[in-house]
Amino acid sequence: MNHRIKKISSILSARGLDALLVTSEYSVGYLSDFAAGEALLLLVPGKENLIITDHRFIQEASSLKEFKAEITSENLPLFLPRKFKELNLRRVGFEAKDLTYRQYSSLKEGCGNDTELVPTDELIEGMRAIKDETEIKSIKKAIAISICAFESLLKELKPGLTEKMLADRLESLIRNRGGRHSAFDIIVAMGRNSSRPHARAGQKRWKPQDLLLIDWGASFQEYNCDLTRVILSDKISPAKKKIYKILSEAQEKALSAIRPGEKAKDIDALVRNFLKKQRLDKFFLHSLGHGVGRQVHESPWLSAKSEAVLRENMVFTLEPAVYLPENAGMRLEDMVLVTKNGCEILSRRLKREYSYD
Amino acid sequence: MNHRIKKISSILSARGLDALLVTSEYSVGYLSDFAAGEALLLLVPGKENLIITDHRFIQEASSLKEFKAEITSENLPLFLPRKFKELNLRRVGFEAKDLTYRQYSSLKEGCGNDTELVPTDELIEGMRAIKDETEIKSIKKAIAISICAFESLLKELKPGLTEKMLADRLESLIRNRGGRHSAFDIIVAMGRNSSRPHARAGQKRWKPQDLLLIDWGASFQEYNCDLTRVILSDKISPAKKKIYKILSEAQEKALSAIRPGEKAKDIDALVRNFLKKQRLDKFFLHSLGHGVGRQVHESPWLSAKSEAVLRENMVFTLEPAVYLPENAGMRLEDMVLVTKNGCEILSRRLKREYSYD
Repeated sequence: MNHRIKKISSILSARGLDALLVTSEYSVGYLSDFAAGEALLLLVPGKENLIITDHRFIQEASSLKEFKAEITSENLPLFLPRKFKELNLRRVGFEAKDLTYRQYSSLKEGCGNDTELVPTDELIEGMRAIKDETEIKSIKKAIAISICAFESLLKELKPGLTEKMLADRLESLIRNRGGRHSAFDIIVAMGRNSSRPHARAGQKRWKPQDLLLIDWGASFQEYNCDLTRVILSDKISPAKKKIYKILSEAQEKALSAIRPGEKAKDIDALVRNFLKKQRLDKFFLHSLGHGVGRQVHESPWLSAKSEAVLRENMVFTLEPAVYLPENAGMRLEDMVLVTKNGCEILSRRLKREYSYD
Repeated sequence: MNHRIKKISSILSARGLDALLVTSEYSVGYLSDFAAGEALLLLVPGKENLIITDHRFIQEASSLKEFKAEITSENLPLFLPRKFKELNLRRVGFEAKDLTYRQYSSLKEGCGNDTELVPTDELIEGMRAIKDETEIKSIKKAIAISICAFESLLKELKPGLTEKMLADRLESLIRNRGGRHSAFDIIVAMGRNSSRPHARAGQKRWKPQDLLLIDWGASFQEYNCDLTRVILSDKISPAKKKIYKILSEAQEKALSAIRPGEKAKDIDALVRNFLKKQRLDKFFLHSLGHGVGRQVHESPWLSAKSEAVLRENMVFTLEPAVYLPENAGMRLEDMVLVTKNGCEILSRRLKREYSYD
C-alpha cells in the first residue's frame, strides 16, 4: 500500500471513521495517479480502496494496481449509499471543501440512517502541503521550464508587441520547452494595466516608457509553477524603480524569517510591517503567498488570516506587491521550499531585475 | 436594470426569497460582466444589487454600473450574515451546486436564526442554457476561429509529428486566429490512444495507418466551442471507415429530431437505439451531448438521465462515438443551435470527413 494511503488510514482510525470519500480531482490524482478525468476514491482501511468512475475512464481506472475499479453509469447518490451498506460502513468522512452542497444533500438523503457522513477539513490538502522528493523534482522542473521560456521571450521583446501577443508567445515557449501548458492564464500587463493584480492580457502595445508585468508559470506532469517579474526599461521613473527595490527588500525580510515552526501569518505580517514603514502597505492588496503543487493555489496560505504553521518541504510563493491605483502595479513573485533550518529559493535562477535597453 | 436580473427578481419573488447569493464565477460573469476573478453577487430585488469582492478586484468591481461594490478582506461567513441583517433579509437563496459544503456550513453558522439559507437548483444555469443574440454571436465566432485553426493545422499535418506537437500547434493557431485560448486541454489521440475518450496528448508519433482524433475548441470573449473530428487516411481499414459513416448517420438522426419541446433524453435514446441496430451501442461510452456557453460543459445535458426539455436558442454538442477497447475510438462532435422549428448546425462549415493523402 502506498505510504500516503497508509497515513490516511491511521488518521481515519484515530477519528473513528470507517472510510473516506475523496472527490477533489487533485487529491484523487495525489493518492492514485489517476489523471484521466472524473473519478472519486473510497478508501476503506483494512478492507479495500475503490476508484469509482464511469465508462469513459474504464481503461485508465482498471490499470491502477492499488485500487479496485467500480465502473457505473448510475447517479452517485444512488450508487454510493448502496456501496457503503455493502461494505458495512457506518461513518464515512468526506472533505468538506470538495463536495458541493447539492452533492452532500443528495448523498445524505440516499444514506438515510444507515451511514453517517462526517465532514473533514483539508485532511488530504494538509498532507499535500508537504511535498515529497518526487513532487519537489516535478516542481523544480516546472520552474526550470518557466524560467527558460521567460528568458527566451525577453530576447524577442520589442516595442509594439501587444500584451496578448506576448502572453500567446510565452504559452508557446512553455510548451516547446517541455511544459504541458501554462499553469494559469498568463498575465501580461503594461503601464497602468499593471495596477490591476489580475489584469487580462489585451491589445495594449508595449512602449519602453511602460512598466511590463508578467505573471506566468508552466505545468509539468501534474505540478505547477507561479512567478512574476516586472521589466523596467531605462525610461521608467526612479520613483518606480525604487518601489521595485523595496519589494526586493521586503522579500528578503520574509526569506530570512522562514523556517519550520514559524507561523505563516507572522511572515505575512513581517512584510506588511516593512512596507508600512515605507508608507506602501495600503497598496499591498493581497496576501503574501500561497502553496503551489497540483493546484496553483493550495495550502499553505501566507495571509493575515492563515492558521498555517510552516513545515519542512512546504512549497509556496512569496509575492510582495504594490499597486498604485490607475497608475502602476509591481509584484515580485518567487517560489520557495522550506528546508530543515530555513528555506531555499527554488526560482533563484531567475534574476531579480530584468531591464530593457 | 438588465433583463437577466429582472427575470431573477420575479423568480425570487414567486418563491418568497428576499435575495439570491450568486457564487459561480460563470453566473457572476453572466449577470454582471465581471470577469476579473473572484467575486460574488447578492441580488436584492427592489433594493440593490451588490458585488462583493476583495481589494485585488477593486477597480473592476467599482466600474460596474448596476452593482454597488462592497470590498472586504473579511471572511465571508462573517461579512455576509451582517450584511443580510443590515438589509433585513430573512430568506436568502443560494445555488446548491455552487457552494461547497464547507462554505454552506460556515455561512449557516454565521447566520444563526437571523437568516434562513434556501438552496435553489440551477436557477441561473437554467437561464444560461437559453442563449441570447449576443451570446450566440460570440459562440459563432468561437466556432469560426476553431474551424479556421483546425484547417490550418491539417495543412501542416505530416507523419512523424507527435500528439503533443499537434496539440501545441493547434493551441497556437487558435490564439493567432483571435481566440483567447483553448476552451479545454486539446485532445490529440492517435491509433489505439483514441479508444480512451479523454486521452491526453502524448509523445506518440503519427503514421497514416493510425486514426487521428482531434477534440478542440476556442474560447472567444467568455464563450466556448467544442468540436471533434477523426482524420482518416486512405490507409485506414474499410471497417473503421464504415463506423465513422455510421456515426455520421447517427448524428443525422439526432439532427432531424431536434426541435423545441423534445426531451433531451429522447434524442440521446434515438442515437443509442440506432447504434444498437449496428451492434455498436455498447461502445458508445458517454452521453450524446452537453450545453456549451460560458462553461464548456453546462446545461442542457443530452443523456439518458437528463430531465431537460429542448428550447429555442439552446446550444449544445452532438457527439455520437464508438470506442473499441484498446483498439480505436471515433467521435463526431458538432455544435447545434435549437431554432423555432428545428435546429441549425453551427459548425456546418466543418466537413464531416477529412482525409490525408
